[in-house]
Amino acid sequence: MTSKQHSSWRRKLHDIIYEADTPLGKLFDVVLLILILLSVLFVMIESVAGLPKYVYDWLYVGEWVITIFFSFEYIARIITVKKPARYIFSFYGIIDFLSTIPLYLTFLLAGSNYLLTVRALRLLRIFRILKITRYIGESNKLKRALLHSRAKIFIFLFAVLIVCIIAGTLMYLIEGEESGFKSIPVSIYWCIVTLTTVGFGDIHPITPLGQFLAAIIMIMGYGIIAVPTGIVSAEYAKKDNYVHVNSCACPNCNAAQHRDDAKYCHRCGEELHPEEF
Amino acid sequence: MTSKQHSSWRRKLHDIIYEADTPLGKLFDVVLLILILLSVLFVMIESVAGLPKYVYDWLYVGEWVITIFFSFEYIARIITVKKPARYIFSFYGIIDFLSTIPLYLTFLLAGSNYLLTVRALRLLRIFRILKITRYIGESNKLKRALLHSRAKIFIFLFAVLIVCIIAGTLMYLIEGEESGFKSIPVSIYWCIVTLTTVGFGDIHPITPLGQFLAAIIMIMGYGIIAVPTGIVSAEYAKKDNYVHVNSCACPNCNAAQHRDDAKYCHRCGEELHPEEF
Amino acid sequence: MTSKQHSSWRRKLHDIIYEADTPLGKLFDVVLLILILLSVLFVMIESVAGLPKYVYDWLYVGEWVITIFFSFEYIARIITVKKPARYIFSFYGIIDFLSTIPLYLTFLLAGSNYLLTVRALRLLRIFRILKITRYIGESNKLKRALLHSRAKIFIFLFAVLIVCIIAGTLMYLIEGEESGFKSIPVSIYWCIVTLTTVGFGDIHPITPLGQFLAAIIMIMGYGIIAVPTGIVSAEYAKKDNYVHVNSCACPNCNAAQHRDDAKYCHRCGEELHPEEF
Amino acid sequence: MTSKQHSSWRRKLHDIIYEADTPLGKLFDVVLLILILLSVLFVMIESVAGLPKYVYDWLYVGEWVITIFFSFEYIARIITVKKPARYIFSFYGIIDFLSTIPLYLTFLLAGSNYLLTVRALRLLRIFRILKITRYIGESNKLKRALLHSRAKIFIFLFAVLIVCIIAGTLMYLIEGEESGFKSIPVSIYWCIVTLTTVGFGDIHPITPLGQFLAAIIMIMGYGIIAVPTGIVSAEYAKKDNYVHVNSCACPNCNAAQHRDDAKYCHRCGEELHPEEF
Repeated sequence: MTSKQHSSWRRKLHDIIYEADTPLGKLFDVVLLILILLSVLFVMIESVAGLPKYVYDWLYVGEWVITIFFSFEYIARIITVKKPARYIFSFYGIIDFLSTIPLYLTFLLAGSNYLLTVRALRLLRIFRILKITRYIGESNKLKRALLHSRAKIFIFLFAVLIVCIIAGTLMYLIEGEESGFKSIPVSIYWCIVTLTTVGFGDIHPITPLGQFLAAIIMIMGYGIIAVPTGIVSAEYAKKDNYVHVNSCACPNCNAAQHRDDAKYCHRCGEELHPEEF
Repeated sequence: MTSKQHSSWRRKLHDIIYEADTPLGKLFDVVLLILILLSVLFVMIESVAGLPKYVYDWLYVGEWVITIFFSFEYIARIITVKKPARYIFSFYGIIDFLSTIPLYLTFLLAGSNYLLTVRALRLLRIFRILKITRYIGESNKLKRALLHSRAKIFIFLFAVLIVCIIAGTLMYLIEGEESGFKSIPVSIYWCIVTLTTVGFGDIHPITPLGQFLAAIIMIMGYGIIAVPTGIVSAEYAKKDNYVHVNSCACPNCNAAQHRDDAKYCHRCGEELHPEEF
Repeated sequence: MTSKQHSSWRRKLHDIIYEADTPLGKLFDVVLLILILLSVLFVMIESVAGLPKYVYDWLYVGEWVITIFFSFEYIARIITVKKPARYIFSFYGIIDFLSTIPLYLTFLLAGSNYLLTVRALRLLRIFRILKITRYIGESNKLKRALLHSRAKIFIFLFAVLIVCIIAGTLMYLIEGEESGFKSIPVSIYWCIVTLTTVGFGDIHPITPLGQFLAAIIMIMGYGIIAVPTGIVSAEYAKKDNYVHVNSCACPNCNAAQHRDDAKYCHRCGEELHPEEF
Repeated sequence: MTSKQHSSWRRKLHDIIYEADTPLGKLFDVVLLILILLSVLFVMIESVAGLPKYVYDWLYVGEWVITIFFSFEYIARIITVKKPARYIFSFYGIIDFLSTIPLYLTFLLAGSNYLLTVRALRLLRIFRILKITRYIGESNKLKRALLHSRAKIFIFLFAVLIVCIIAGTLMYLIEGEESGFKSIPVSIYWCIVTLTTVGFGDIHPITPLGQFLAAIIMIMGYGIIAVPTGIVSAEYAKKDNYVHVNSCACPNCNAAQHRDDAKYCHRCGEELHPEEF
């Protein structure tokens, strides 16, 4: 019976870690959320130079506490899940592993301090916890809208990139090195900065012709910005009262534009055989 | 009867202060509006250095006039309202109090000149007066559209923030201090400046890899800007006051564009037979 | 009969100048269009310093030719129109006058060279000529969409301005003069530059708190940009197949949401008396 | 029979080059795609100064390989097509010619190194190959949406340009040369940079009046950005493939959301009586 008892103990732990319906499960999620946010905050503060030494000391202690908690959590996740290998090599499994390991690596590898910044990736773990919130519905809708406009967005970005390469090459020829357009890649970088209306100003045209071309690029960018907005707007605007129709024609009355889920013609009642199309 | 008379006097004052239907009430609102705008203007002019001394003197006198008017108004609001405590701790009650007090505080506290700038908050009082204008309908619609997209906007801002933290951390690793990316918080600040397409140019990537990542962030920001627009557009497009019309024509008067649910012609009252179309 | 002949001569000239249906009228419009564009081009080239002297000489000659043509045209417009006073004080009458006079004024007034730049206003005359093009339909639609969203846009700009004043005041307090935030008006200017995502970078926050507030302003500006877009999009999206409904209720069947032009209830055919509502 | 054999050999080559249905045709397209991308990459890398000499040597060799391939391809395209003249002077014919010739020209003309950058135009050839992909549908939709809004976009750009010219002239008068507003064309350039919210910061107003006008231009630009977005959104929202559904339920199977013009249920074929609803 030990095995069964063990199994029941594992199931309980599994419910706490992976689910959020029990009070303990909720508490676990809240603690995890706070630790993730704290840990990311620690990484940020650590990067600020010029703070008093005891701050860095406390951050180091805090980092140890979080790393140990994450280590136990990682082990618990592996032993309570039915197929550990599947978890370990899943997206969140890898994120969990990368979240746990950086501090240990500083002992093995000298100069692995940069690895510590990998801890910022812990932020991605938040998405797992937020899976339980009511916002996931909205998030899904957003994701769906983006997925549906996938092809449109790809074509759009491709066109933007080609415009940037050609305009960047022209600017490189017109302006030359003394204006900061040192090479074609740098010119393309400038072109992206301009077309997206960011406009740092680190590089900017000086010659009249260059400024003229820049003005055209800017106005173009201004017009182009409308395209992704229009795409996503239209995707969002697809209200529940509209259904998608296909181009099938009814074999009886030849009526076209049937709903995708139509089995019978809406005009004459004839049975449709969509599988034949 | 004194109490009743007093009560009637209080009611009259209450109508003048809180309502705008009587000529005196309208006059009060207009005077208040002008004083608020003047007072905010005074704060602005005061902050400009290098003006002749008599300007500052006149501003000081003007400020006293406004403060005294606001003091009387504040007292009047308290004594005419039925539940003074409720008013005092309401949003507008606190704004009114903060609008009145700064000048008095300069006597009590040395170096409280900075408090004087709190007077800019007086601008918020305008919203109370504008409550009476015809624009409030539009303002409500705007507020409603924003409220309805609350969850979507929250998810969106959350995603933007996570992108900024991760991209900021990467830029900090790639560019380092010599490019101005002094710490992760500064890098995140740069990332927000870039993603929102503001692009001050005070900090900007120098290394090719940093410029490449920056280009990706910018194009992403360009695409992301479509999302809130799409959300608000779709929210606005949800028109309550519009109904879909079809292309049926009335058999009697030939009026077209009937509502989908119309049984009778809206122009001549003739019975429609949509099934015949 | 001289008077009649004269009248007929005036009518012919009137048709040439004010209309575009005859070949001569079209020719006149094309010549006028070219002269307006040339004249604006001359103003631009004149402002460029460092060109050889003969360019400025030729520009001066060209300017004289255009001014004389415009003078004759202005006189012709006055003598051919029925109510000269009405034309002279109309919008286009004033523009025409301002387009003609600058060169003459340089003789009367010394140092009136700046007045010459007023000639750039000649560009506004183009709108009169373009009245005849096919684009005017689109232009009207654009104007209508903007007019319909007038109240919404006003509320929006008002809200943006209040946000800018309050955020500008806060930035002035936080950053102070050494960061370039010299006074509240300058801070408000910076705030507008940032909120509209222009971001010149001439003034930018240096302190962590200032950068934090700036980040919030930017993200807000990023979200706010969605509002006017949503407004105009929704206005544009009002397709012909939708009609506006009001909140009247039928006196017979109590059906609500009738079309604005409905005379009979669409559900029961009862006569509606919208004038009673 | 040689002529026929030759003809068949030509037809085969034609299918390989111009079509993508056969395995060889697909392979040809993939090879061409890779060579185009490589060639554009080579142009970019070549423009970067400071790389070791052997990199430039290898790029030169690679360029020769690509040029020879393109030369054979160009000749093959001419001999396999029925009307060579028509191909040669078509858009893609000219692009193909310009893609092939630059390297040969360096022998004929001294200092024709700048011509080499013309090779970036090879990127345009990609569009021919992509004609075969599934993205072309989306691309067409995008093109159609832009074509339909042609007149609107023209009016919009024209209005933007007039605003820029007038505002640029005003800024030139207000700010003058010491702020960087050297001439009216430069001021117009600044105005476009500002109105499109790019904001390089190379030129920026210094005087209070100039900053005030700049603020107005920026807010205007912020509002104006809504217009093209609204246009394209509305154009996109015109969905051909969607029909409006009403809330009727089928009396037989109770399926809801029938098309407005449905007479028979799309699920069970039962006759609908919309007049009963």
